[in-house]
Amino acid sequence: MKITIAGAGAMGMRFGLMLHRSGEEVTFIDGYKANVLALEEKGLQANYNGEEVIDQIKAYDMTAIPADLTMDLLILFTKSTQLQDMLQAVSGNIGKNTKLLCLLNGIGHEKVIEKYLPLEQVFIGTTMWTAGMEGPGRVKLFGKGSVHLGAVDKSQEAVGKEIAAILTKAGLNAHYASHIKEMIYRKASLNGCMNSLCTILEANMAEVGACPSTENMIHSIVDEFLAVAAKEDVHLEKEEILANIHSCYDPQTNGKHYPSMYQDLIKNHRLTEIDYLNGAISEKGKVYGIPTPYCDLITNLIHAKEKLLEAK
Amino acid sequence: MKITIAGAGAMGMRFGLMLHRSGEEVTFIDGYKANVLALEEKGLQANYNGEEVIDQIKAYDMTAIPADLTMDLLILFTKSTQLQDMLQAVSGNIGKNTKLLCLLNGIGHEKVIEKYLPLEQVFIGTTMWTAGMEGPGRVKLFGKGSVHLGAVDKSQEAVGKEIAAILTKAGLNAHYASHIKEMIYRKASLNGCMNSLCTILEANMAEVGACPSTENMIHSIVDEFLAVAAKEDVHLEKEEILANIHSCYDPQTNGKHYPSMYQDLIKNHRLTEIDYLNGAISEKGKVYGIPTPYCDLITNLIHAKEKLLEAK
Repeated sequence: MKITIAGAGAMGMRFGLMLHRSGEEVTFIDGYKANVLALEEKGLQANYNGEEVIDQIKAYDMTAIPADLTMDLLILFTKSTQLQDMLQAVSGNIGKNTKLLCLLNGIGHEKVIEKYLPLEQVFIGTTMWTAGMEGPGRVKLFGKGSVHLGAVDKSQEAVGKEIAAILTKAGLNAHYASHIKEMIYRKASLNGCMNSLCTILEANMAEVGACPSTENMIHSIVDEFLAVAAKEDVHLEKEEILANIHSCYDPQTNGKHYPSMYQDLIKNHRLTEIDYLNGAISEKGKVYGIPTPYCDLITNLIHAKEKLLEAK
Repeated sequence: MKITIAGAGAMGMRFGLMLHRSGEEVTFIDGYKANVLALEEKGLQANYNGEEVIDQIKAYDMTAIPADLTMDLLILFTKSTQLQDMLQAVSGNIGKNTKLLCLLNGIGHEKVIEKYLPLEQVFIGTTMWTAGMEGPGRVKLFGKGSVHLGAVDKSQEAVGKEIAAILTKAGLNAHYASHIKEMIYRKASLNGCMNSLCTILEANMAEVGACPSTENMIHSIVDEFLAVAAKEDVHLEKEEILANIHSCYDPQTNGKHYPSMYQDLIKNHRLTEIDYLNGAISEKGKVYGIPTPYCDLITNLIHAKEKLLEAK
């Protein structure tokens, strides 16, 4: 199968490497020139569960995609903030038979994606795999993970299951989930608390959890996520989400971790994915007539911090 | 007149010095031992509009107030966070004829004060004077200012005017304001935006003002202040408050200033007055049945930062 990975960051390289090793015809598209050059000249170099591997996999800069590149499956692994640019870059290669799989964190990517192809060709999901970028063309891949994906258009369940089977054949442990939106909202509610609060407060999850005033804040934020989700017929248990959030505080497990948004903004002065987390809830809230003051304020505070830190 | 200044910080020393020079019998009460000691041993040392002055003014530690100390007028200049402790300390000296003047920033101090004396003895206000502490017993006093004060109990207008006259005789330029609550709410709405946002974002007023997302936030915060004020029959013009806030952004005037809350928390790791700004609006909102999500979240974020910075 001709698979294009749009965004050859750490996670894109993991999926690309595993699918390539499984016999699929993988192509990377990326906007980071040094990365594309390294992939072309040196191949994809990985520490793959302790073993040093180098695989030759085609890679193109997003400004130089061959017109005849066929995409049976397009897997999106860009940053949310680069989603529109990447879709624009690959739009000439998207055909009637192209299936798109979006595993980006957050919610609301479909609104951008549907400008480029019909939603019956679109599949969304979440992944628990991890990956660490070590430099241009080089990643460190350890541990185990999984993928859950579902069709945006429920009639496309059979196709979604085929995609899951291809990923599973490559060792990616993928499952078709008929309730994928529940999973996405569940993950987004957690990230909408921990990513956002850790970034605003510039603290790790254990430190944020240890503040007595955190509990009030997460209750209010989660309430807004659940109210918006309910309007889309996605029903989640508040207690379960709160329990997931509380489990992040443990300094013995994940507590000392600084979430990706913190790393993007505070450490690397990059724009965040806030518009696909709390910002998406604010936008949907406006459409549905649901007040979302906590998500509004959090989104505005993060955007203010982006401006103050001159994030790009 | 026997005047006690409770809280001999920079502003307390300004008022104490000016009232003493005007012939009043001034006594300081303070909780900072080195400060009390310096006042006792070396006198109050001030750079008073460029002139070096030293005035001998009585000063007592708040744990050692003479039982026979009479207070005709008690002027509160503690930190809001120390208000309760200070009132407890002086409570044995508050008599039926003691008038209390509270010029602390923020709103809601009356709720604490009324535990110690009847509200018909209480006067509240705002001041535009400034003062800079230079060390124990030593202040720098420059520029001009004014005081506006009013009676909590409207029947006490005549007494309030007498207090204003005593302050004015000392050069403190005081005015009796029958609409003092309007003035207090007006100042608090501004501080509830600029103090809070500059502290959460760790930026000065010009930087905060330059963030495009600030405007949304201040509109929402000001709306909550005005809704709560209206419930107390205090009616303010939103446009006027917004204009005051916008005028803080100018880097040519006040814009590069870091508000007092920033200095307390970010610079000096001290507890803030948030419970008498956004926190007071949250509390009053609960009582009045007015939702105040923005002030709730801001209050909780500041309290979280206090905890993270181990503020005391």
